[in-house]
Amino acid sequence: MKSKLLLALLALTLTGFANAQVKPEEAIKFRQSGYGFMAWNMGRIKSNVEGAYNKDEVIKAANAIQAIANSGMGALYLPGTDKGTGWEKTRVKPEFFTNKEGVTKVALAFGKEANEMAKVAATGDAAAVKAQLGKLGSTCKGCHDDFKIKD
Amino acid sequence: MKSKLLLALLALTLTGFANAQVKPEEAIKFRQSGYGFMAWNMGRIKSNVEGAYNKDEVIKAANAIQAIANSGMGALYLPGTDKGTGWEKTRVKPEFFTNKEGVTKVALAFGKEANEMAKVAATGDAAAVKAQLGKLGSTCKGCHDDFKIKD
Repeated sequence: MKSKLLLALLALTLTGFANAQVKPEEAIKFRQSGYGFMAWNMGRIKSNVEGAYNKDEVIKAANAIQAIANSGMGALYLPGTDKGTGWEKTRVKPEFFTNKEGVTKVALAFGKEANEMAKVAATGDAAAVKAQLGKLGSTCKGCHDDFKIKD
Repeated sequence: MKSKLLLALLALTLTGFANAQVKPEEAIKFRQSGYGFMAWNMGRIKSNVEGAYNKDEVIKAANAIQAIANSGMGALYLPGTDKGTGWEKTRVKPEFFTNKEGVTKVALAFGKEANEMAKVAATGDAAAVKAQLGKLGSTCKGCHDDFKIKD
């Protein structure tokens, strides 16, 4: 009983109070939601740079991606969420939980390019947005290559 | 063939170019993702005002909710998405697609309180955040009451 309490306290310390109440399957669902919503917004920006460009729509999409990228989703990779089902079975690779340096690297790259995308979107320069979309997309791919199980 | 083309053009006009490529089941998945991600962030703010308060975490959560609230999710309620399955079967009520005035009202209320939440979060005033969380939550509930099928 004592060791269970100790483990629970340790989990609290590691994950922060706010996440102590998030169950593993909820954490997986929340992170899949974040990626799913960003996917919509990446697609919207892509449609805009390939077709009729709507500055306001691109700004909204870029702001959503930026806010999600900066929301601290790392907290959703709780112990015990390396396997399990949220909206669907998680496709995270075990390496995500062991290669801290690698994860930090891809996360920082993603945050940097997401912040830059919001800045570029605000200018309304379609060509610059297209170029930045490529950079941002490559940071998504960088993480997927290393830490997401392929379809 | 001509009438099909006409319908396709009408759909384009109604939904905007960028959404022309979003399939109904994708649109449902994307909007469920948006609500799912906001649910995490509402829960985080709640945990913070009820427990140890972390100003930075609340700001991140409020910014995510604000950006999603302002992202133009209405575009995801495409014709043909009144029924169907994204991550799960949609629980939108038929009224959502007919009561335009009612939808506009709840959407504007939600956007207003989400913007206000981001402002209040930036101050770091836990009591004010708690009060604003109540206001914001009531706009979620207002929409759910009218336009979401109960569990």
